[in-house]
Amino acid sequence: MTGLVSLVGAGPGDPDLLTRKAARRLAEADLVLYDALVDPAVLELAGAARRFYVGKRAGRHHVTQEQIHRMMIRAAQAGSRVVRLKGGDPFVFGRGGEEALALAQAGIAFEVVPGVSSSVAAPALAGIPVTHRGMSTGFVVVAGHAEAAWQPALDSLAPGALTVVVLMGLGHRAAIAARLLERGWSARTPAAIVWAASRAEGSAWRGTLSELAATEVEAGAGTASEGAPGTIVIGEVVSLAEALAPAASHPLTAAGGSR
Amino acid sequence: MTGLVSLVGAGPGDPDLLTRKAARRLAEADLVLYDALVDPAVLELAGAARRFYVGKRAGRHHVTQEQIHRMMIRAAQAGSRVVRLKGGDPFVFGRGGEEALALAQAGIAFEVVPGVSSSVAAPALAGIPVTHRGMSTGFVVVAGHAEAAWQPALDSLAPGALTVVVLMGLGHRAAIAARLLERGWSARTPAAIVWAASRAEGSAWRGTLSELAATEVEAGAGTASEGAPGTIVIGEVVSLAEALAPAASHPLTAAGGSR
Repeated sequence: MTGLVSLVGAGPGDPDLLTRKAARRLAEADLVLYDALVDPAVLELAGAARRFYVGKRAGRHHVTQEQIHRMMIRAAQAGSRVVRLKGGDPFVFGRGGEEALALAQAGIAFEVVPGVSSSVAAPALAGIPVTHRGMSTGFVVVAGHAEAAWQPALDSLAPGALTVVVLMGLGHRAAIAARLLERGWSARTPAAIVWAASRAEGSAWRGTLSELAATEVEAGAGTASEGAPGTIVIGEVVSLAEALAPAASHPLTAAGGSR
Repeated sequence: MTGLVSLVGAGPGDPDLLTRKAARRLAEADLVLYDALVDPAVLELAGAARRFYVGKRAGRHHVTQEQIHRMMIRAAQAGSRVVRLKGGDPFVFGRGGEEALALAQAGIAFEVVPGVSSSVAAPALAGIPVTHRGMSTGFVVVAGHAEAAWQPALDSLAPGALTVVVLMGLGHRAAIAARLLERGWSARTPAAIVWAASRAEGSAWRGTLSELAATEVEAGAGTASEGAPGTIVIGEVVSLAEALAPAASHPLTAAGGSR
């Protein structure tokens, strides 16, 4: 008897945005290893499974990546059905590829269950399509938690050509915006921050790239959900939220800044 | 009594990759308007709803975008629950933004139900994470069906910096690859084509950018599913499929070209 490890995308937060396959894998699981970005309501779909938090904790001891690999491998070798649950999609940042490689190298049966990525869903739920005819013919997704990653990625783009989505970049949002301005992006480029998309406490801010670079946005916006996961969107498509945001199923209120 | 229009993402094909919310909206719908990229198995989840194909037909009369808007608006005004079902995610190409604007302007209640986008899921199911530490710090998604759209988008990227995903680009794949080579991308950049990801008939080809530009790929690869939706992936991350593809839950066989 051998186990199976499922690398499962939990989507942006709302348990209704899990895929049917993800929900079934959770219900059948023996062990669930989950990250900080996974909403508690999603975890409730895990029936009798043991649940283990393996996310980062600011300034505290946390489970290392190596330890996560070992936990998955040992549980699968013991015959367990393991769900490795990640916010959004398992292969959009979040080290899903590394975990898949560790499982492959250990000869463990595994599968990938793609999820709804916040890179597209967070803007959408705030009334922002990442692509739109005559406005944006594509989009770029970068991770904003480490300058060594976001700076070369953003520097590789011609100013204004594509919609830019930054995940995990709230802490560096002023620096990210300042860098784009330095690179020649227009100060008037519409920009948005979406907090906790698809969740009851969701909110959004809309303004311009120059406002995003200014410190007053940090002080004024989204204080109620400052700890929630956030998505930054930069590009003309943000202006569509003016018409689309109020009618969306999860209307997100502007929590500060100019609309 | 007023209706509701749900702009729903159907995901890459497998009905199990629909979200729970999408499945529920389909089951409750009075009218489903669907596109060419929606798998027939997904439509089976629509209970008693009337179903109407509004996709493009090559060389034949098809429903115009204006007609789709009118159909949605009239049905909602008559109190119907309308599902506008689109392959992948409703706001990743596919004119979801235009439809949302038409609904908003007509004062129709609507919502967006994000879906699993093929831009991430098709590579993932072929063993290719679009991001990977030390290899790719982000990804770009462009539509490949019209040169006027893909050429400026691809021209705006520095060679090799980010993973490139091209949706709906099978018909232009040689031209797309040739353009990237002209722009300075390495001929040895790993490249893949994934056909019909998540479906039983799914297949994949892997090779290099220069091979993608050559006509022999068109002749040799994926002939069984040439009509199926296809996703092109270009970047170092494609090399990870060597280790990850065989163990994936939906293993995709290389249908031609070099591995």
